[in-house]
Amino acid sequence: MPTSEQFRALFEPRGVVVAGASSHPGKFGFVSLHNLLAAGYAGKVFATNLNGEEILGVQTVPSILDLPEGEVDLAFVCTPAATNAQLLRDCAARGIRAAFLTSAGYGEAGEEGKRAETELVALAEELGILVAGPNGQGVVSTPVDLCAQIVAPNPPPGRIGVASQSGNFVSSFMNLGVQTGIGFSRGVSAGNAAMVNVADYLEFYGDDDATAVGLAYVEGLTDGRAFLERLRRVAERKPVVLLKGGATSGGQRAAASHTGSLATDDRVFDGACRQAGVTRAATVEEAFEAAATFATQPLPKGNRVVVLTTAGGWGVVTADALARTSLELVELPEDLLAQIDTKLPPRWSRNNPVDLAGGETRDTIPEVMEMVASHPDVDAVIYLGLGIQSNQAKLMRNGRFYPDHGLERIVEYHERQDRRFAEAAAEISDRTGKPILTATELATADPDNPGPAAVRASGRLCYPSSNRAVTALDHMWRYARYRARRDLA
Amino acid sequence: MPTSEQFRALFEPRGVVVAGASSHPGKFGFVSLHNLLAAGYAGKVFATNLNGEEILGVQTVPSILDLPEGEVDLAFVCTPAATNAQLLRDCAARGIRAAFLTSAGYGEAGEEGKRAETELVALAEELGILVAGPNGQGVVSTPVDLCAQIVAPNPPPGRIGVASQSGNFVSSFMNLGVQTGIGFSRGVSAGNAAMVNVADYLEFYGDDDATAVGLAYVEGLTDGRAFLERLRRVAERKPVVLLKGGATSGGQRAAASHTGSLATDDRVFDGACRQAGVTRAATVEEAFEAAATFATQPLPKGNRVVVLTTAGGWGVVTADALARTSLELVELPEDLLAQIDTKLPPRWSRNNPVDLAGGETRDTIPEVMEMVASHPDVDAVIYLGLGIQSNQAKLMRNGRFYPDHGLERIVEYHERQDRRFAEAAAEISDRTGKPILTATELATADPDNPGPAAVRASGRLCYPSSNRAVTALDHMWRYARYRARRDLA
Repeated sequence: MPTSEQFRALFEPRGVVVAGASSHPGKFGFVSLHNLLAAGYAGKVFATNLNGEEILGVQTVPSILDLPEGEVDLAFVCTPAATNAQLLRDCAARGIRAAFLTSAGYGEAGEEGKRAETELVALAEELGILVAGPNGQGVVSTPVDLCAQIVAPNPPPGRIGVASQSGNFVSSFMNLGVQTGIGFSRGVSAGNAAMVNVADYLEFYGDDDATAVGLAYVEGLTDGRAFLERLRRVAERKPVVLLKGGATSGGQRAAASHTGSLATDDRVFDGACRQAGVTRAATVEEAFEAAATFATQPLPKGNRVVVLTTAGGWGVVTADALARTSLELVELPEDLLAQIDTKLPPRWSRNNPVDLAGGETRDTIPEVMEMVASHPDVDAVIYLGLGIQSNQAKLMRNGRFYPDHGLERIVEYHERQDRRFAEAAAEISDRTGKPILTATELATADPDNPGPAAVRASGRLCYPSSNRAVTALDHMWRYARYRARRDLA
Repeated sequence: MPTSEQFRALFEPRGVVVAGASSHPGKFGFVSLHNLLAAGYAGKVFATNLNGEEILGVQTVPSILDLPEGEVDLAFVCTPAATNAQLLRDCAARGIRAAFLTSAGYGEAGEEGKRAETELVALAEELGILVAGPNGQGVVSTPVDLCAQIVAPNPPPGRIGVASQSGNFVSSFMNLGVQTGIGFSRGVSAGNAAMVNVADYLEFYGDDDATAVGLAYVEGLTDGRAFLERLRRVAERKPVVLLKGGATSGGQRAAASHTGSLATDDRVFDGACRQAGVTRAATVEEAFEAAATFATQPLPKGNRVVVLTTAGGWGVVTADALARTSLELVELPEDLLAQIDTKLPPRWSRNNPVDLAGGETRDTIPEVMEMVASHPDVDAVIYLGLGIQSNQAKLMRNGRFYPDHGLERIVEYHERQDRRFAEAAAEISDRTGKPILTATELATADPDNPGPAAVRASGRLCYPSSNRAVTALDHMWRYARYRARRDLA
């Protein structure tokens, strides 16, 4: 288990050296240096190259030993496996405490590679260096603008900490982060996880103030029980969201070729996750959205949900979705019904979902949302129908009659209203301490629509469908219940 | 049951009159006229208004009777319920054969409204006018650029025909169409479905050359058996995708307030759908994607799927997803293995998923895709990893070193490659007659990435995750099997 000082060297280095930098823009040794510099990393950047070329404005040196003492904490290694033992020794000589290895030719490459990997780990332990990887895609840490990766993207800052056995999924999660604006504190591709595995990273995130929620992908585990026991201790402090590949025999065969992972009994694993308070997601999207929800919404104190909608059909399918979870589509209390009656003409649903049925005027949505969220018998709100007005406004704005015929004024009104509804959802959630989740297909279909755009600006996730909001909220409630039980015990 | 001539009047009118046009941009009578004109409807546009104002350049007339005889087929009605009986008589007098009624105050509005609705239908039948709605949001027909709706969007042209008990879902499906580029032939919000219901529209779509697949939302049915019997006859000719709200008791209560729908036993209904060859989707996204797949991919002739990936983790979770369907992650035939061996270094997976493991060079992906799709033991391909190169290229393009240091050239290379892979998928699918589905989160996370953008330009759907591609392909295979059984019988 690496020390917290070593993890600091990996995630908050004072300086970074790219070992094996290249002037060829197709090589890892170029791309990683590029991404590091382009992301505006806060510390000093060095690079080694046998020819001592200048690359991207950095004057490279032939050897790590040519670097100043004590200015570099992290080596980002793009050199061939055969040279890495000497490299680690040189790193130790210069006070470098962490190395991220992209190099292939280790555990993934047959018996010889496995031997090389064992030797590498033994040497790293002897030298006191944390080795991340090998065969990994890189490491990201937004508090210091560190993007030391051979791949895109550079994610927005935020509070999700990612660790993954598959480098692709670090990228996929972060692409979803770029899309939604929900960002990351740290991210690391564990590669072969020779010395540091996914559970190690999650334990670090558990103690890391920059991280509010852990998000992990694993394919297979030599000891699933021990893995979950470690995650259980993290989940006592912070939510942990887990996506697991290789849940079926087809997936296990694929995982065996991909990361050489062993099979686990999926139903046993699933039950153990629940007991450990670990949020297990079924898909990449679900995993990201669960983590994004934990990172941006307060935990619900109960499971009583009200659906507030201006779109009747969406209300109906959301009621269906809720019925398949541990959440309750709560019966509207009499006093809340009476309150809402004062704001709407009699044709509203008088039922949960609260379907405004087109009866709303300028202030109805924020007012009714406030009534609903403030009621003591309501624990969470799902709000549907945002952006419909602005969607029509867009047809007007782009049509051939704009801005005449009163179109400019009505377009601005519609857009202002949708922004206001989104802001009300965030503001009322903050004030009541209750989750309010906003869902519309416009979140992906037209992210520039002022409704979803304002949700994004408020720092919340705009869910692309109510089903997905329901799933995310259900994960929150399950975790909240787990935490409450733990705290009682 | 309306006649095909009446349906032609609704979907391909020679001229349209907006009855009850308004100069106030917040009123339905303005919005519908605006949308009709802004979408560039091919036929003549008229409008009535009691004051005879000019609205959006259209000189209104006080009455339908002031219109020329035989130039108008469709009335789009925004007048109050009380005036509509006389309006229909006037329509009949001018040879108008279809009316879309947005007017509320009918079946959704208590006993009195129900009576008014019954009378309206009786009158329409007597006059030989098809009445769509009332209380509906409108009708769209892209072959004639008709967008007669009180809501957005105006969808792109395509081959999906939509009919929905909820107007919101017409908009939601079409918003997804705008996003993905997969378009619509026709779309209609059935409203109260007083005279024409969802099954009627689907039967019309069944005979409609412009429509390749029907897509419907229903909430509840007075006679589910009769409904599915009618859909069965459509499904014998074309795929029909159905989303049903009110599947649970919570949803049924919500549906009762929304459209006054009756409860159905969901398990019985589900089995009946399968027997009728109707593709039932669980969510709005799944319904749209199933329809979009039917509209753009050839039907598979069997269930043997190969996953081709440059992203190992995605390969694993896709194998898991396939294991939960009727599709088979087929074992790679020896001759195909041997063929792929000629194109890749030995570290590739030698297994299905075909994980290229970074061993690909310039031409590998199209070449291997061709080998896989051409093999007689393969019925369909799922292709993963598109856009990863261009995603890194984007970091380079937007970084501070571009275009120097060789960045311009490498960026163009990456982007050209991703475009090429997307085009190869469409081209090889066309040539082999087998479905090839491309999935990447970049489809939504960065739609302008040249990979997903080229999929879109090829007229195919780029699936936002492999799970969603698997679900869509599974729907295709179930329908193909149904059709094959029917054709044998």
